[in-house]
Amino acid sequence: MAKVLIVYATDYGNTKKMAESFFKGVSSVKGAEPIMQEAEKASKEAVRDCDALVLGTPVHMGACDWRIKKFIDTICSALWMKDVMVGRVGAVFASGSGFGNSAGGAELALLSMLNNLVELGLIIIPLPKNTEGYDVAGLQWGPYGRSAGIHMEQTGVGEEQLVSSFHHGKQVARATLHLKGNKIFSKE
Amino acid sequence: MAKVLIVYATDYGNTKKMAESFFKGVSSVKGAEPIMQEAEKASKEAVRDCDALVLGTPVHMGACDWRIKKFIDTICSALWMKDVMVGRVGAVFASGSGFGNSAGGAELALLSMLNNLVELGLIIIPLPKNTEGYDVAGLQWGPYGRSAGIHMEQTGVGEEQLVSSFHHGKQVARATLHLKGNKIFSKE
Amino acid sequence: MAKVLIVYATDYGNTKKMAESFFKGVSSVKGAEPIMQEAEKASKEAVRDCDALVLGTPVHMGACDWRIKKFIDTICSALWMKDVMVGRVGAVFASGSGFGNSAGGAELALLSMLNNLVELGLIIIPLPKNTEGYDVAGLQWGPYGRSAGIHMEQTGVGEEQLVSSFHHGKQVARATLHLKGNKIFSKE
Amino acid sequence: MAKVLIVYATDYGNTKKMAESFFKGVSSVKGAEPIMQEAEKASKEAVRDCDALVLGTPVHMGACDWRIKKFIDTICSALWMKDVMVGRVGAVFASGSGFGNSAGGAELALLSMLNNLVELGLIIIPLPKNTEGYDVAGLQWGPYGRSAGIHMEQTGVGEEQLVSSFHHGKQVARATLHLKGNKIFSKE
Repeated sequence: MAKVLIVYATDYGNTKKMAESFFKGVSSVKGAEPIMQEAEKASKEAVRDCDALVLGTPVHMGACDWRIKKFIDTICSALWMKDVMVGRVGAVFASGSGFGNSAGGAELALLSMLNNLVELGLIIIPLPKNTEGYDVAGLQWGPYGRSAGIHMEQTGVGEEQLVSSFHHGKQVARATLHLKGNKIFSKE
Repeated sequence: MAKVLIVYATDYGNTKKMAESFFKGVSSVKGAEPIMQEAEKASKEAVRDCDALVLGTPVHMGACDWRIKKFIDTICSALWMKDVMVGRVGAVFASGSGFGNSAGGAELALLSMLNNLVELGLIIIPLPKNTEGYDVAGLQWGPYGRSAGIHMEQTGVGEEQLVSSFHHGKQVARATLHLKGNKIFSKE
Repeated sequence: MAKVLIVYATDYGNTKKMAESFFKGVSSVKGAEPIMQEAEKASKEAVRDCDALVLGTPVHMGACDWRIKKFIDTICSALWMKDVMVGRVGAVFASGSGFGNSAGGAELALLSMLNNLVELGLIIIPLPKNTEGYDVAGLQWGPYGRSAGIHMEQTGVGEEQLVSSFHHGKQVARATLHLKGNKIFSKE
Repeated sequence: MAKVLIVYATDYGNTKKMAESFFKGVSSVKGAEPIMQEAEKASKEAVRDCDALVLGTPVHMGACDWRIKKFIDTICSALWMKDVMVGRVGAVFASGSGFGNSAGGAELALLSMLNNLVELGLIIIPLPKNTEGYDVAGLQWGPYGRSAGIHMEQTGVGEEQLVSSFHHGKQVARATLHLKGNKIFSKE
């Protein structure tokens, strides 16, 4: 069994929708078990026990939500210190209502979480552009769902924009199964 | 007189259009003189003599065009070594036809040029979101014009998407006039 | 009078030392008034009233401390929405005890704060490499003081590493005086 | 057999030394075959045929060398368009003589190459901090060897600083063997 832990923060429910869609994608893969926790309630035990850590955030001023950052600083940090997570799997996703048509800040927001995952020693699963749903909700670093129009008129993340996170859930689940028990970073 | 040097690379003319629009914006400010050079022909003298250095690029794989990078490595690098440019003004812009609706790679592409400008010691002029035209062609780091639809159907950068670079040209010209002769980094 | 607001978070006092050194640098410039607030106690009024916003953080997993991020999300975000800060001045600094000799994560940590400042529309003051103290505590984006050796043996940020933040305080104070009342982003 | 292609640029031979060390690390893993090509001579065929693509660069102004960028723009770009590389393995390394003790620009330089690898759809192998040699030549994104002291006195990359790239070569070789033939991104 490969455990995929999805830790997310949400303001109006959009990132939560993406987390649920990611969850379903993981569920659809035999042998993979998704777990979903809000960042503020996420536990150190769940992180220590998972085979893949996935972070999802609303975009705020070009970086992740502070609740995700608190989770990183207070929980991930201690595990980094002890090299506990090395060789497991990591992935990220985000939603945002940034002004303009250029995904205001999404790329650096995804990166602000990825840097943590990479420091933990996780193997990073990107979102290839030929993934279904990428065209309306994708960046190379992970799914990105827009929850507003270019003038910030709130539309919410729609069905169409949940497709890429569903498929990324599948991809990450398969990666986790495939990489479970790997000896890539073995000291021998 | 404040000299604003615009160095750009272009594939199909889209970034060139934005450079021209930026040029017009600079021209519209009394006392500011724009100069435009293709990256491959840009001269060390022009960089050394300018009061503001502006870089414009097509987005390629999440970073600037190699011709911009060659200009940076072969010309800017030497000026960095000698601290020649410290205290002048810097800005960036880009165009791109990246797959998807999330400005594929534009943010890091702008940043790949900005890092050079910051290392040179330039004062960075951002693109505030209330700049005219930001909604259809803007990112916080500078104007970004999309030259294709979400499936990469080529449309070119249209008139509407040249508005933000025109206004950023004005902003940068004013900043250059305002900052000319500043003692911000004086050793006294 | 130019008000420079320094908002910082600190774990063991190292970033606080740098904030104090930055504060002294600002104080040394006639006409500049430094204000220092811990991120958790920083007020919206102080931000709205300042002429320059400076953020300082410990490096945690390659991004700023969550308390800085909370300040950004809950206070800066609302000011961004209303374009209140456009045209003022911004700068950043950090301290860190990251494992290794390569300033583990400092560059992206500085950037995770800068992105917020740029979205606010602040004019960014870099740290030129010829600034006194840069050799032992500097990155292009701002002062960076190491508080530990390469194996994380805690040394604290020493006197020598406070020099660059003192001088950056001076530079930012001068920039703020020079730019106060500028019409760079005027709509006319 | 798993083919690991190392594409590098070098100015004074330091990045080349790291490439050779990486090469030896790959060679030490049974079933893995390293191939080494200078960026200017690298061929599209070699990229298309490899199972892992590794990029190594000197740090120039906070991004990769222009020759690496030219390789990315002219060769990788076309493979991206056709989704040819999806699901293979990617990694990066760098050397630098940047002024100061904070690895001037190394982090964003590694990232400027990684963005390309992620767009290609490669699975990214990080450098965990418990990798041998990380303390003197490591960043979370990959090995980083300093070739100069803090005042840019040229020392070259020494033996001690080649240890992390040797071990990362091993790690990447194992990852490539482990991931060869994976169905992670399968459309079924």
